[in-house]
Amino acid sequence: MSDRLEFAKSLAQKAGDLGLTYFRRLEELTISAKGHQDLVSEADRDVETLVRDELARAYPEDGILGEEHGRIHGTSGYTWVIDPIDGTANFVTAIPQWCVVLSCVHQGQVVIGVTFDPVARELFWAERGAGAFVNGMPMKPSASQSLANGSLGVGFNGRSRKEDAVNAVQLLIDEGGVFFRNASGGLMLAYAASGRLIGYVEAHMNAWDCLAGMLMAEEAGVRVAPYDADAALDKGTRVVVASPGVFDAVVTLAEKAYA
Amino acid sequence: MSDRLEFAKSLAQKAGDLGLTYFRRLEELTISAKGHQDLVSEADRDVETLVRDELARAYPEDGILGEEHGRIHGTSGYTWVIDPIDGTANFVTAIPQWCVVLSCVHQGQVVIGVTFDPVARELFWAERGAGAFVNGMPMKPSASQSLANGSLGVGFNGRSRKEDAVNAVQLLIDEGGVFFRNASGGLMLAYAASGRLIGYVEAHMNAWDCLAGMLMAEEAGVRVAPYDADAALDKGTRVVVASPGVFDAVVTLAEKAYA
Repeated sequence: MSDRLEFAKSLAQKAGDLGLTYFRRLEELTISAKGHQDLVSEADRDVETLVRDELARAYPEDGILGEEHGRIHGTSGYTWVIDPIDGTANFVTAIPQWCVVLSCVHQGQVVIGVTFDPVARELFWAERGAGAFVNGMPMKPSASQSLANGSLGVGFNGRSRKEDAVNAVQLLIDEGGVFFRNASGGLMLAYAASGRLIGYVEAHMNAWDCLAGMLMAEEAGVRVAPYDADAALDKGTRVVVASPGVFDAVVTLAEKAYA
Repeated sequence: MSDRLEFAKSLAQKAGDLGLTYFRRLEELTISAKGHQDLVSEADRDVETLVRDELARAYPEDGILGEEHGRIHGTSGYTWVIDPIDGTANFVTAIPQWCVVLSCVHQGQVVIGVTFDPVARELFWAERGAGAFVNGMPMKPSASQSLANGSLGVGFNGRSRKEDAVNAVQLLIDEGGVFFRNASGGLMLAYAASGRLIGYVEAHMNAWDCLAGMLMAEEAGVRVAPYDADAALDKGTRVVVASPGVFDAVVTLAEKAYA
């Protein structure tokens, strides 16, 4: 496995740095709305092409699933799941909180997860059975024992019912808690896996947004509500992730919020 | 005025870089919870001391108001308002989204506002009558004409009623909008001023969290609901900031949410 992990770490950084060159140009382009939109499309396309080309060259028999181009089935049993720019709304508006997310699924399990934040220069990665790390340091869960201690990431997107996120925010605040949403699911899951957030909940996420972070969480000792990785490839999944001391409370919150 | 602006820009960067040295050490300290807490207190104290000492040396007759040490009244008519580390919860948990916020009030008006994000290396500043800039580029409002187009920053803190933030999130999502909360009011206001967010609302903010960003917004052509700067120094203020095309809708939302 480890060659795929090393490859993914290197590729995520390469893709992130390419994205960053566009991001810096976008910041300078705030005046021309039209030029701005063209550059965003170019950034999206170029970063995704880089990732797909490098994957196809290194592992031609692996499958690939991404947001933009659907799924290519491979023959090796490995499927790469890619989100070249996670947090696109931030990227587009020059908010420096976005990342590259790569994961790899094998025999119904996520086996590799890598997230790279090019602005903050943080590389998060996990390999099944080998632990989870951020910039080389082991991730560890939050020590929080209560929803009132620490912040919970609350995801939201146009695919879910409008009331889902409102319910989650309401139930959390009722318990004395604090919500966090920086509009990059990839970053928020990496923060939950590394104990910076006490957890993360979202009614529905696509595979390319969540599989990497859920593996990081599992490997870090952060708990993850059961999900089916193969099914997630096709239709996404609910995501409920939390440090051990608050996991039961977060599960209860999500069950009520998303009922 | 401009010497105070140049001084504030330089001081914010110096303070942010000092904070960053502690932040990097915190990231390496994830193992020892006790050492961690000591280092956080040391960071807070040292950054605030740096800011206060430099201000006292450069402008000994100016007043100073900050979160930690209350208000020192000056004789020059200028009062500096300082938040050495805004987004403390992020700083403490190693989330790289926090900033230094400095503003200066004179004769009932905010005349200078500076926000520095040491991780993303973004310096936001404004001077009354002289415009608002991010890393030297002029800030400009979002072109959004609808709550459904773009993201609105929704602030939340323990001082306000529990229902305030829930109401704001609910009303926003009902209109097809998206909420954003990265737990640094200073950064979110700077993003609203620079059109990255369509606006920012919070039922109550302290002066050190909001005065800089509200001046940036005004100077950028982003609209700010009327507030009393002198009163804000004593007891904080409600904050409603939005780009022109959505300002009326955001005012209506805040009036309903915080009624």
